[in-house]
Amino acid sequence: MSNKLFNKILIIGVGLIGSSIARGIKEYNISSNVYGIDKNEKVIAKCKELNLLDDVKKNIDEFSFQFDLIIICSPLGTYKEIFLSLNNFINKDTLITDVGSTKVSVIKNFNDKNKNAHLKFVPSHPIAGLEKSGPEFGFAKIFENRYCILTPNNLNDKFIQSIKSFWKALGMKIEIMDAEHHDRILAMTSHIPQLIAYSIVSTANELEMHIKDEVFKYSAAGFRDFTRLAGSDPTMWRDIYDNNKDSVLEMLGRFTEDLSTLQKAIRNKDLSFLEKTFKSTKDTRKIIEDLGQAGSFDPTESKK
Amino acid sequence: MSNKLFNKILIIGVGLIGSSIARGIKEYNISSNVYGIDKNEKVIAKCKELNLLDDVKKNIDEFSFQFDLIIICSPLGTYKEIFLSLNNFINKDTLITDVGSTKVSVIKNFNDKNKNAHLKFVPSHPIAGLEKSGPEFGFAKIFENRYCILTPNNLNDKFIQSIKSFWKALGMKIEIMDAEHHDRILAMTSHIPQLIAYSIVSTANELEMHIKDEVFKYSAAGFRDFTRLAGSDPTMWRDIYDNNKDSVLEMLGRFTEDLSTLQKAIRNKDLSFLEKTFKSTKDTRKIIEDLGQAGSFDPTESKK
Repeated sequence: MSNKLFNKILIIGVGLIGSSIARGIKEYNISSNVYGIDKNEKVIAKCKELNLLDDVKKNIDEFSFQFDLIIICSPLGTYKEIFLSLNNFINKDTLITDVGSTKVSVIKNFNDKNKNAHLKFVPSHPIAGLEKSGPEFGFAKIFENRYCILTPNNLNDKFIQSIKSFWKALGMKIEIMDAEHHDRILAMTSHIPQLIAYSIVSTANELEMHIKDEVFKYSAAGFRDFTRLAGSDPTMWRDIYDNNKDSVLEMLGRFTEDLSTLQKAIRNKDLSFLEKTFKSTKDTRKIIEDLGQAGSFDPTESKK
Repeated sequence: MSNKLFNKILIIGVGLIGSSIARGIKEYNISSNVYGIDKNEKVIAKCKELNLLDDVKKNIDEFSFQFDLIIICSPLGTYKEIFLSLNNFINKDTLITDVGSTKVSVIKNFNDKNKNAHLKFVPSHPIAGLEKSGPEFGFAKIFENRYCILTPNNLNDKFIQSIKSFWKALGMKIEIMDAEHHDRILAMTSHIPQLIAYSIVSTANELEMHIKDEVFKYSAAGFRDFTRLAGSDPTMWRDIYDNNKDSVLEMLGRFTEDLSTLQKAIRNKDLSFLEKTFKSTKDTRKIIEDLGQAGSFDPTESKK
């Protein structure tokens, strides 16, 4: 008799998050077996080298058995094709979840493509990550004490409980939310900060060569924090902006208004406005530290 | 016979950077004695409690002896008054340097206020920092392997060498630069990233209450990186924008152009433009890591 929650789990897309989930499943003994599929041959080779999975294939139909739980960890642009492939493959009741950063689009993709009543889908978003991509960078602790937001279609579905238990077993705190609301919140906490980071790094990239070299050299002054975010996976982020356009444009509008106000204050030397604004944001940092969501930054280089 | 570079050093303003310098002077045995002045009684009390200095006063004229080296580590808005007080106090040749984030304004302040030929001023900018403020957060290693930019008025001044040796003794790499050029580079690497961080955190602060709470709660998704910068000292930053207005407005103009371009690409679903931009910024991150200026980020909470 085992305490394991599952017997066979399949991870679709074994990058940073997929590989972190695979590691967590093994470390916390969540499933008897864990399998993976990935379109990228290099990722497959790396997974084998690191012995992350019991088996890893390129396509789902290469497996001759079914799974209890399938977790989609690939970019949002791949979901439609994945749901189509699951229609054909799955022949018994199977839990499906995902890790996508937008939820309205994911639910729409599922509703458009799913023709198989065996698929029990609970959209999830574990809010955890790092700017690195690839299975070699994953680690089980990435989920510890972070939130996982579920946006189920029908709150009465009994299988939601199994998905909750899965994320909890990885150390996450669970919240249930409406998909539209999720997408607005994440536009502000994630998609806009990321876009701004991309934008400022690309501004620096377009400076005249002699200044650009120096900007990189002296980046320890604040710019480096933006390059960290801007080092994230380009395809994943392209798909996020494609799938959360409206909320992103709304929040971006608010941001540019506020930036213009600060710009005007600098031009007019309105020092008391600047100081007042900077004081209020310092208080915000305190709130996030108190919530235990701040992470830790070491201004020295890591010892590699 | 001692290898010490100095006999008596005075630090004006014993916050994060001033206290880090004090710690470095002791750890690396750079001076026989190190003294401080600070206008803030709490800072004075904290310095005494931590035993950071041989003595700490509120005003320079409370000292009955002279110094070999004086380092100004207070906000840019205090410089004029400090140069005036030094005019009266100093009665032998004394090296003066500072840590201010703008250099044109500092040189102008010195030229306007200095009436004492004993003051040998070499403006410096050690590019090192953290979002914390106060002497309790300082540490000597903050300078290790970071750049210190000197912007001397006259490159032939012999005393520049002593200032170089001082920063080198703290573990820094020295660069000489024109003050105008420094201010443009720093606008891009430091002042604009900081302003954007302040701006996005204040956008979040102005969201409706129910969304705002959730934005803070789920800040681990990227937003938290901005709150770290936005937790920096408000007075220090107010003075930076006051003193580097032109370069900041120029670089801000470039940034908003690039952000508008990305905004338009999202609106028009120009996915190939987005992906191309995001790929080029990922390469930039690699350059900064290779330069050893990236710092280290740990997505888990620090153990305190």
